[in-house]
Amino acid sequence: MIPISSRDNKNLKLIRSLRRKKGRIDSGLYFAEGMRMVQEALLDAEAEIQFIIVSDEFAEKNKIFINSLDEKGKTVYTARESLFLEICNTESPQGIGVVLRMPEFVVPDWEKQTFVLILDGIADPGNLGTIIRTAEAAGVSCVCLLKGCTDLYNPKTVRSTMGSLFRMHCLSGGQVEALLPALKQHGFTIAVTALKHSVSLEQAEIVGPRALVIGSEAFGVSDEVLNYADIRVKISMEGKVESLNAAVAAGIAMYFLRPQGGRDRG
Amino acid sequence: MIPISSRDNKNLKLIRSLRRKKGRIDSGLYFAEGMRMVQEALLDAEAEIQFIIVSDEFAEKNKIFINSLDEKGKTVYTARESLFLEICNTESPQGIGVVLRMPEFVVPDWEKQTFVLILDGIADPGNLGTIIRTAEAAGVSCVCLLKGCTDLYNPKTVRSTMGSLFRMHCLSGGQVEALLPALKQHGFTIAVTALKHSVSLEQAEIVGPRALVIGSEAFGVSDEVLNYADIRVKISMEGKVESLNAAVAAGIAMYFLRPQGGRDRG
Repeated sequence: MIPISSRDNKNLKLIRSLRRKKGRIDSGLYFAEGMRMVQEALLDAEAEIQFIIVSDEFAEKNKIFINSLDEKGKTVYTARESLFLEICNTESPQGIGVVLRMPEFVVPDWEKQTFVLILDGIADPGNLGTIIRTAEAAGVSCVCLLKGCTDLYNPKTVRSTMGSLFRMHCLSGGQVEALLPALKQHGFTIAVTALKHSVSLEQAEIVGPRALVIGSEAFGVSDEVLNYADIRVKISMEGKVESLNAAVAAGIAMYFLRPQGGRDRG
Repeated sequence: MIPISSRDNKNLKLIRSLRRKKGRIDSGLYFAEGMRMVQEALLDAEAEIQFIIVSDEFAEKNKIFINSLDEKGKTVYTARESLFLEICNTESPQGIGVVLRMPEFVVPDWEKQTFVLILDGIADPGNLGTIIRTAEAAGVSCVCLLKGCTDLYNPKTVRSTMGSLFRMHCLSGGQVEALLPALKQHGFTIAVTALKHSVSLEQAEIVGPRALVIGSEAFGVSDEVLNYADIRVKISMEGKVESLNAAVAAGIAMYFLRPQGGRDRG
């Protein structure tokens, strides 16, 4: 354990800089807060942990856990409560966080994918994280973020994934004209959520590998993406509701269209 | 339009008091922020609007709308920007809000209901609001909040319903031992989300009126409620995900179990 006593310590400065996208891009690092995220990062063999930081109070109350980190050869800094609070982005910090290297985005072997999620203009960090968490549960093997989505490594996004970020294959900054044709070439059915000229999720029949495109709450899927649609699907809505929360809509669509679920079930 | 110039104005004090449950119970009123909520309240014949409050800037930019409120006989107060900001609960206030009377909770005629949602321990205000919004879209006709749910009129809950609160029949503070037997007596199938001894949503077959019970993210549905279950259902989860966001889980379950959706479709 290495104590940090000054606000001007370079690691504290680094963590504060990671709140902004520029800081993350310049350093290639991001910050994940909370015990859950640290534990998930430790479990993920591919997560490149730079260092862990805890508050003095956390260190005092979790000596066995801290020792286990030392034994694993992890660098652990401790900072007094007031300094730790300054680096946190949550309302009730747990006293622990981890700085990680952002992985490089690698295009997966499309032949091995059966269910891909494409996000178009998801601007809310919390929604993006919740969608990635739900995607893992629904059996999605790759999440592709088109331009216009919020940043994958925004602290709120990271936290909302509840650890799924470490396990999900994600592609960010994807170009429509590169991604969609590649998927089509590999036999994917492109299902796009759209209000008009669409069938309800219950009526959608898809065989084989599929890519589901979810648009923003406000603007839906862009016309550019709609041009690639093999099937347009919608969530039937009763009452006077105009739209659903983006994370809820994505969850419903994923569960109806996943290979094992909905109409494909045996 | 009646100008408010002092922070000590009784209506400003009243709105500030409505942030807390005690203030709402003492006055029988609640506050809904934003243009969307005001418009939905105006559309709902049963919404008891006490008064509308706008910022000077909003009034200046929306003269025609303000005139239409005057013509409808609505009381409109204006407050200068700094005073208006003090009563707001959002990060980027739109400059308009409305004070409404909380409706009395009336037990509906169960014979006329086909799809009821019961919430057990939903503690997050944003999730509660999002669930009510999704429930309207899924065709739920009544949402029942058991003890342990957060308050229906919490400002964040109100806002997250995006107006569905005005249209949905809600029952709050429901007692398990009164509600569940009444539903059973009226022929409802009680479907409860549970991880153990449950069938997946895709396998659940329900005919006739149904009540779906959703539990909290952390603790699930209480044993007391589980005792009344006619069918226990679960959302199949792949990967290492332990649970879904409560609003997402509720959305998926509602869409699979609603009378018109899933297995019941013609």
